[in-house]
Amino acid sequence: MSITEKVREIAANARQASLEMARIPTGVKNDMLLKMAAGLEKDTPHIIAENRLDLEAGEQKGLSAAMLDRLMLDEKRIKGIADALREVAALPDPVGEVTKMWKRPNELMVGKMRIPLGVIGIIYEARPNVTADAAALCLKAGNAVILRGGSEAIHSNLAIAGVLQGVMGNMGLPTAALALIPFTEREGVLEMLKQEESIDLIIPRGGESLIRFVVENSRIPVIKHYKGVCHCFVDAQADFAKAEAIIVNAKTQRPGVCNALETLLIHKDAAAAFIPRIAATLAGLKVELRGDDEFRKYAQGAKPATEEDWQAEYLDLILACRVVDDMDGAIAHINRYGSLHTEVIVTGDYSNAQRFIREVNSSCVLVNASTRFADGGQLGLGAEIGISTTKLHSFGPMGLEDLTTTKFIVYGDGQIRS
Amino acid sequence: MSITEKVREIAANARQASLEMARIPTGVKNDMLLKMAAGLEKDTPHIIAENRLDLEAGEQKGLSAAMLDRLMLDEKRIKGIADALREVAALPDPVGEVTKMWKRPNELMVGKMRIPLGVIGIIYEARPNVTADAAALCLKAGNAVILRGGSEAIHSNLAIAGVLQGVMGNMGLPTAALALIPFTEREGVLEMLKQEESIDLIIPRGGESLIRFVVENSRIPVIKHYKGVCHCFVDAQADFAKAEAIIVNAKTQRPGVCNALETLLIHKDAAAAFIPRIAATLAGLKVELRGDDEFRKYAQGAKPATEEDWQAEYLDLILACRVVDDMDGAIAHINRYGSLHTEVIVTGDYSNAQRFIREVNSSCVLVNASTRFADGGQLGLGAEIGISTTKLHSFGPMGLEDLTTTKFIVYGDGQIRS
Repeated sequence: MSITEKVREIAANARQASLEMARIPTGVKNDMLLKMAAGLEKDTPHIIAENRLDLEAGEQKGLSAAMLDRLMLDEKRIKGIADALREVAALPDPVGEVTKMWKRPNELMVGKMRIPLGVIGIIYEARPNVTADAAALCLKAGNAVILRGGSEAIHSNLAIAGVLQGVMGNMGLPTAALALIPFTEREGVLEMLKQEESIDLIIPRGGESLIRFVVENSRIPVIKHYKGVCHCFVDAQADFAKAEAIIVNAKTQRPGVCNALETLLIHKDAAAAFIPRIAATLAGLKVELRGDDEFRKYAQGAKPATEEDWQAEYLDLILACRVVDDMDGAIAHINRYGSLHTEVIVTGDYSNAQRFIREVNSSCVLVNASTRFADGGQLGLGAEIGISTTKLHSFGPMGLEDLTTTKFIVYGDGQIRS
Repeated sequence: MSITEKVREIAANARQASLEMARIPTGVKNDMLLKMAAGLEKDTPHIIAENRLDLEAGEQKGLSAAMLDRLMLDEKRIKGIADALREVAALPDPVGEVTKMWKRPNELMVGKMRIPLGVIGIIYEARPNVTADAAALCLKAGNAVILRGGSEAIHSNLAIAGVLQGVMGNMGLPTAALALIPFTEREGVLEMLKQEESIDLIIPRGGESLIRFVVENSRIPVIKHYKGVCHCFVDAQADFAKAEAIIVNAKTQRPGVCNALETLLIHKDAAAAFIPRIAATLAGLKVELRGDDEFRKYAQGAKPATEEDWQAEYLDLILACRVVDDMDGAIAHINRYGSLHTEVIVTGDYSNAQRFIREVNSSCVLVNASTRFADGGQLGLGAEIGISTTKLHSFGPMGLEDLTTTKFIVYGDGQIRS
């Protein structure tokens, strides 16, 4: 059987298995996840041995030390993966929730009930923990899942998926509901992206080039985000101590992630008092500042900012800085250069806080808090399957509920339409 | 300026105008809709004169009487269009609704707030009333809208859109938020479907060939349904009088629409008692029955059903009929042949009713009520912009809420991530 035939078969079997997954009671799903966690811990030596093969191949291919570290599994990391499955087991099951219900004048009771999406494809890069994490979230929400990990992690991914499938088989659950594409050829992923009859949604997890490749080749809807150009606006009436703490946290706590701060906007009335202070603090933390002329009046060490700086997702200890006339100026800048990811206002003014919340339509809008809270776990979703900066279906960090949809349910007593 | 350049300009201007539309207060939007209704009534003679041009061209092109009737506008129909705008004005504004809010352990208040989708493209056929209906719903939900109606109605559509744009202009609102593609060439719609940077969602309204054309050519997400193969399952413990009333209503009240009944499934224990009765009633209403062997034992007049009958959306006075062993048989048939549109169980059995609601994952699942209730107005959505039988974003009849998404909002007091 060719690669394309095999991928088509995997997708068709997953579609069939998804019908069964949609009906499995919560208790059985949770039991399955707990047994998967135990199975991973029990098979740790086998998983580490398979992971070793990936590491050896990676060294020969000349992967960077950072890549190899992301790839590496040891006992502690496998325990971490197992614990993440236990956390998913402990989350409430979204399937079957009636999100609302109302009565019509003809006494029909009409409601909306959460149901699984069906079959979800996850396409990801070198981290083998995604194999277990993403599978657990998709299965808990009653879906079938087709995983396609990076070729660098193929042995590790097959070993982890094998353990999870073994648990499902032992429990009499359909193992086709947790499929891993066993090929590293690009042909396999391209064929997967054509299975629009079998797969309902594709979620790519990885760098911008992976995401663009998926979007350009998929016939299936894709939920994605390309980048996070996150802004912080320091208003005239801001508490400067809070503003400083938020900016430092948002820029320096983990500069390489999508919810890190990239652009600082400062109200002109706060410029003289706040810029020297924040510039000194950030300089002490080795953050390079690139500012407009107005900003550089108060921060001599800053380099001049160019048009590219307003568009940049640095993912590094660099911050673009600009003085704006007022709230309108801040919102106009965000509308022009933002990526719809995450924006923060630091203000003590009630009306400005409410206006920023209302008028800035990025996926996560915060008052007086760090951009780093734009994360499924931090916001209280329990776990995160990905993040969306497009508005259809989901917008922002996505949890279990985002792996479901709702159907209309109607309880009648013989009603007909007149 | 070429057609493609003009379409790109329309889309880019709509994107810009959508930022303004998103901020307009509810009262202003409602006032705008009421003035639009009055404007249409006031300009009735002009609209009728323009409609006459379409009718004359249609007669020359040899459009069918039914098509010409759908195209025709008179004073009464224009009053109907105006009243529909008043109904949209009376609906609650979905924008700004906080659908939920919760507190995190660090005292952050996290919520989800409804916001407009942005720019919505509507592609439709010969009914000029859609020009006003669809525009009103999109604008009320804070979006910009780009309309592309059928070439047969171009004069009528331009006249209606002109009145609505005139109201927006007089009120100082951005007229680019209500655009009508003024070209009837296919080039225009193809270019529209490429504007993924400016348009967030395409909703096609019309026959299957229009919808397939849009899906195949769009780079923008499309919400659609191809067909409705709706099922009614009469359980062993059904009230036969209710079952008969529901089947007659679902099949005959308006056979040409997507929520009409197409396939009847009957529990084998109800076959002997119910089939002769329903067959006689339907024969009296000129409904042609096509049954499997078991059904035809009790309904001699029925023709034999073939595999194609189980897949058919007749949109006519024809009904496919099959006897099934039990609920499992009914659900298996629906899973295999259904279109995820609408399914009904008629039963007096509590557990079977609940099981059908839980396990049948079509967009609308009813107990003891006609399939004809699968409609935005009938379900209480206030108005319907379309219907979706794919699960992403919306599933089933879509109202104002389906033209929005939600963003995360976070109220903090200086919190940073540790």
